[in-house]
Amino acid sequence: MATSAEFSFRAWTAGILPLFEAKLLAQFANARPDLLVEACRYPLQTGGKRVRPLLAFGAAEAIGGSAQAALDVAVAVELLHTYSLVHDDLPCMDNDDERRGRPTVHKVYGDGVAVLVGDALLTEAFAVLADAGRAGALVRELAAAGGASGMIAGQAYDVGMDGPIADVERLRLLHRAKTGALIRGAVRLGAIAAGAGDAHLEQLTRYAEEVGLAFQVHDDVLDADQDNKPGGPPSFVKLLGLDGARAVARGHMQAALDALVGLPRPEPLAAIAVYTVERSV
Amino acid sequence: MATSAEFSFRAWTAGILPLFEAKLLAQFANARPDLLVEACRYPLQTGGKRVRPLLAFGAAEAIGGSAQAALDVAVAVELLHTYSLVHDDLPCMDNDDERRGRPTVHKVYGDGVAVLVGDALLTEAFAVLADAGRAGALVRELAAAGGASGMIAGQAYDVGMDGPIADVERLRLLHRAKTGALIRGAVRLGAIAAGAGDAHLEQLTRYAEEVGLAFQVHDDVLDADQDNKPGGPPSFVKLLGLDGARAVARGHMQAALDALVGLPRPEPLAAIAVYTVERSV
Repeated sequence: MATSAEFSFRAWTAGILPLFEAKLLAQFANARPDLLVEACRYPLQTGGKRVRPLLAFGAAEAIGGSAQAALDVAVAVELLHTYSLVHDDLPCMDNDDERRGRPTVHKVYGDGVAVLVGDALLTEAFAVLADAGRAGALVRELAAAGGASGMIAGQAYDVGMDGPIADVERLRLLHRAKTGALIRGAVRLGAIAAGAGDAHLEQLTRYAEEVGLAFQVHDDVLDADQDNKPGGPPSFVKLLGLDGARAVARGHMQAALDALVGLPRPEPLAAIAVYTVERSV
Repeated sequence: MATSAEFSFRAWTAGILPLFEAKLLAQFANARPDLLVEACRYPLQTGGKRVRPLLAFGAAEAIGGSAQAALDVAVAVELLHTYSLVHDDLPCMDNDDERRGRPTVHKVYGDGVAVLVGDALLTEAFAVLADAGRAGALVRELAAAGGASGMIAGQAYDVGMDGPIADVERLRLLHRAKTGALIRGAVRLGAIAAGAGDAHLEQLTRYAEEVGLAFQVHDDVLDADQDNKPGGPPSFVKLLGLDGARAVARGHMQAALDALVGLPRPEPLAAIAVYTVERSV
C-alpha cells in the first residue's frame, strides 16, 4: 500500500519485518524442556499483521530515529500481545479453538501448558527490555500498558467485572484499556527507545490513542455480521449502526493523522493509520 | 527463633515485615475496576511465611547493606511467587480449592478472573523493579528466576512435559527449577539491590541453591503422609525414605551455612537456613 509517490508501506515493512521475525523466534533459547520451547514459539509463528511492532518501528522513525532502535521494544510488545491472546483463548476465558485458522495453544498442548506458555511469554517480554538501554523507563511503560491499569483492566471490563457495557462511552473505556493501552504502549516504547523528548512523546501519544480507537471501531465493522447477533458482545456497530461506526473510525483515523503534523518522518505511522480503517482482516 | 545470644530471628522479622506488608498491599493503587483491585490483593493477604522476601532482606544485610535496600525486590519476588500459586491452583493445573485454609482465587472470583489476577501480579512484579535503581539488572534476574529457564521450566517438568520423574537426580532438577530458581533469585536480587560485588554474589548464590534444596526436601518430609500414597507426586521421601530425606535436608542446610562463612552479617540468612529444616508448616 503506497500513501504517496515517495513512500511505500509495503517496501518499508519488507525492510523491517524479517529482522523482527528472526529476533522474535530466537527467544526462549535458554528455556527448557524442549516441548515448552516449542509450545512458547508456536503462537509466535502466526503470520499475524504485527501491527504493534510496526507502530513501535514507525514511532522510532517518526521522531527521526532508526527503526532498528525499536527492535527490542517491538519484540517485547509482540510477546506481551501474544501472551494476552493465549490466555484469552483459554476455555475459562473466550474459549476459542482456532486463531488465524490454526488450533489455539490449549487445543494443541492442553490448558495447563497454555497457562504456562502465556506466563512465559509475559515474563520474556520484560526479559527482552532488561537488555535494552533505558530499561527502567521501558519496563515501567510496558507494565503500565499491559497491567491492571491497562490491558488487564480492559479484560476485566470485558468479562463484566464492572457491570454491563451498554453505551458508547463505556465501550470506549473498555477498548481504551483492552486494546488501546498496548497500542499506546507500542508507540511510546518505540519513541522512548529512539530517544524521544517530551513534546514528541506527547504528540505521538495523541496519535496512538486515536489509532487505537480507529483500529477497534474498524474491527467491529469487520465483525459486524456476528456482533449484530442478539446476545453477542457489545460493539460500536450495535450502538452506532454500520455507517455510524464507519464514520467514527474514519474520524479517529483523521485525528491520528493530524497528530503527526510537524514530525520529522511521519510517513510510516500515517500509512499505519490509513491501514487501520482500510484493512479487510 | 534465636540462633545465638546476640541475634533474634523473631525480632529481626518483626522489624522488617510490617513495612514489607504495607508496601505489598499498597500495590495496584492505579488498577481498575475496583473488583479487580480487590481480587489482586486477595491472595497477597495470606499470613504466609514470606520466606522469599526474608531471603532478599537477609541477603542485603549479609553483605553489610540495610534490609531497606531490598524492599522493592522483596515485594517483586513475593508478587511473582503469589502469581505462580494463583495459576498453579487453577482447575487446569493442580486444581486446589484451598490455600492456607482460605478458598483459592478461582473459587472466590472464577477461573477467568484468576488467570487475569495471576497475569496482573506477574506484571506488577516487574513494574515494582522499574522504579528501583539498577532496573535492568534486577529485571534480568527476576525474569531468569521466574521464566521458561527457571520456575516455569520447573512447572513444565512437574506437569510431565519431559517425561516421568523417577529418580533423585531428576527430582532435584525439577525442584532446582520449580522452587529453587525463585529462592536463588530472591537472594541474588536482595544482594544486587544492596550493591553486592561478584564474590559476595557468588557466595550467596551457593547459599541460595543449598537452602532451596533443603526447603524442598523438608517440604517432602512434612508432606510424607500424603506423598507416600501410591500414585502421588514424586518426592524425596518416596525415593530416599523418611530418615534418608531428613538427612539430605540437614546436609543441604549445613552446606548453606558453610557458604555464609566470612560475610559481614550472616546471622539472618543463617537463621533462615536453620528454619527451613526445623519448621513444622
